[in-house]
Amino acid sequence: MKAINRPTLLINKNICQSNISKMAEKAKRNNLIFRPHFKTHQSSEVGEWFRQEGIDLITVSSVGMARFFAGHGWKNITIAFPCNILEIDDIIELGSTIRLNLLIESVEVAGILFENIRNKTGIFLKIDSGYHRTGIEPENLTLIRAIMDRISNNSKLQFCGFLTHTGQTYHAQGVEEIKGIFQPVFRSLQKLKSEFKSMYQDLIISVGDTPGCSLLDEFPGVDEIRPGNFVFYDLMQFHIGSCEMKDIAVAVICPVVAIHKSRQEAVIYGGAVHLSKEYCRSADNSIIYGMAVEWDGKHWNTDKTLGYLSSLSQEHGILKLNEGISLHPGQLVAIIPVHSCLAADLLKMDQQII
Amino acid sequence: MKAINRPTLLINKNICQSNISKMAEKAKRNNLIFRPHFKTHQSSEVGEWFRQEGIDLITVSSVGMARFFAGHGWKNITIAFPCNILEIDDIIELGSTIRLNLLIESVEVAGILFENIRNKTGIFLKIDSGYHRTGIEPENLTLIRAIMDRISNNSKLQFCGFLTHTGQTYHAQGVEEIKGIFQPVFRSLQKLKSEFKSMYQDLIISVGDTPGCSLLDEFPGVDEIRPGNFVFYDLMQFHIGSCEMKDIAVAVICPVVAIHKSRQEAVIYGGAVHLSKEYCRSADNSIIYGMAVEWDGKHWNTDKTLGYLSSLSQEHGILKLNEGISLHPGQLVAIIPVHSCLAADLLKMDQQII
Repeated sequence: MKAINRPTLLINKNICQSNISKMAEKAKRNNLIFRPHFKTHQSSEVGEWFRQEGIDLITVSSVGMARFFAGHGWKNITIAFPCNILEIDDIIELGSTIRLNLLIESVEVAGILFENIRNKTGIFLKIDSGYHRTGIEPENLTLIRAIMDRISNNSKLQFCGFLTHTGQTYHAQGVEEIKGIFQPVFRSLQKLKSEFKSMYQDLIISVGDTPGCSLLDEFPGVDEIRPGNFVFYDLMQFHIGSCEMKDIAVAVICPVVAIHKSRQEAVIYGGAVHLSKEYCRSADNSIIYGMAVEWDGKHWNTDKTLGYLSSLSQEHGILKLNEGISLHPGQLVAIIPVHSCLAADLLKMDQQII
Repeated sequence: MKAINRPTLLINKNICQSNISKMAEKAKRNNLIFRPHFKTHQSSEVGEWFRQEGIDLITVSSVGMARFFAGHGWKNITIAFPCNILEIDDIIELGSTIRLNLLIESVEVAGILFENIRNKTGIFLKIDSGYHRTGIEPENLTLIRAIMDRISNNSKLQFCGFLTHTGQTYHAQGVEEIKGIFQPVFRSLQKLKSEFKSMYQDLIISVGDTPGCSLLDEFPGVDEIRPGNFVFYDLMQFHIGSCEMKDIAVAVICPVVAIHKSRQEAVIYGGAVHLSKEYCRSADNSIIYGMAVEWDGKHWNTDKTLGYLSSLSQEHGILKLNEGISLHPGQLVAIIPVHSCLAADLLKMDQQII
């Protein structure tokens, strides 16, 4: 391992590979297509660990990310983001080298793809299963039929099915709440499937949030899962109940630069440009930007917590220390990030695998 | 201008240069050293606009940033961040090519610099003027004297003075509140200066927050200002009252990818990895991640607001549209960012000057 002297994302290969294996096995057990979301790690090397598990279908969230992974040999990619028609030239170019699947949710965008797409391209209709970020309501059969009609006479556009992200699970806690959220979701997706199954025998239902995929054991009516965050997990997933602390595969190692004993605080080199300003809340409702744990130079130890980040500016992090903990400038601490996707994106150029 | 098809930070050169001129003139008028903070723009090109104003002293917030600007011909740089002793080798190397000023606030770090520094290096003591992020309390003369003693017998370490960041102005609104915050700050810094002036005739007092530097007309006892954000300003500074909307020099241009008429919402390609999750609050206490205004292909128009970003995920932004506003997929909108330092850091590779 290269010596660390500034904020650096460490990826624990063993934990990461175990997270991948477990999810791949769950998919197999449930006879589900496993199409992991690569937006969390955005790493060609972590991608290889998926390939070793036999995975060759992936999900990304931008055309740029699709191009990156296509460049690393991935041949079948779903861009799980409402199709950005301003990137149509890049989409056409990419579609000439790999199999792309796109997401649409309006007749207008369907029409533009109809006129422009030159290679066989998969089309998913984005369904809003209650998160209300984006997508078509599953009851809106008029719109769904109109979009299908708009693409139906172009053999290049291949309708694949219905895709949803049940992101409301991020506000839940524990398996029972997650199950409660998914019951009506599964029902409405099954209804949608049975509505169109006769016309499209191969249509698939694709779901993909980490809490649901981690905590549920049964996925009635579902054909494909696309979780992403599970590869690393993080503090937010721990709070939701999707993982245990030992399953978190990343930590950001940060130097201590100042001590304020009177406030029982330390200042670390590690701020919003390293961790993001994503936060979660503690039991007493305090805002937490990350959990600090011991780093022995080789491993972080989630059993030995030092405190939590109570505030972040561009480069500074304020670490509220637990009683009895004392640190000194020049020491390194491990920060378990609140949202590993954002921390990994910010530290793309400063990461190491251990 | 290159055609925009994904989230792109635009920097308006005229506005930016006007912000630079105004601050440079205010410094001149008050006989202050102007040492702008370059962490906001991190751009060699924007740096040149400062040079054209005759500026040759700058501030940065990391050793890496100091190295970057040293590579672009800047010869006198203050790293306004508690000295990270783990980067001592990089500091020594950099100190052999340019004049560096470092910040310290403990005897321990002073000792490490005493033992290691090889070239003439400026030392500022970081003072906590009430923000309580980091720094020594100005009343703690015992600690201040102990640090000065620790560095005093090394002619390489040149004590420069006291440096503070009065960041509590970020929670204020309007010139009167800012003045109220600064009255005791100026008093305690003057007291500190008079305490040590006889020993160090050239010691300087350095302050540096954008709200204070933008809104105050007098800086009694201060010798140097180091504002950074003012070069771009942003929504947060507008809310504080540091600038008008027309002074904001950056906008993030984002494609619209979906429309939800029933909720009077649009989804844009523009999320936490482009804008950061920094937010401010509207008059009715809603959380705002950015303000959307019209973009005509050449200019954004802050008189024509479209709505505000109410929620961000990794790549999605949810835009709550004003009544009567209707958008369509493929349209571009301009987002005035909440915190331009973080947006500029995230979009370092995706920016254009107009």
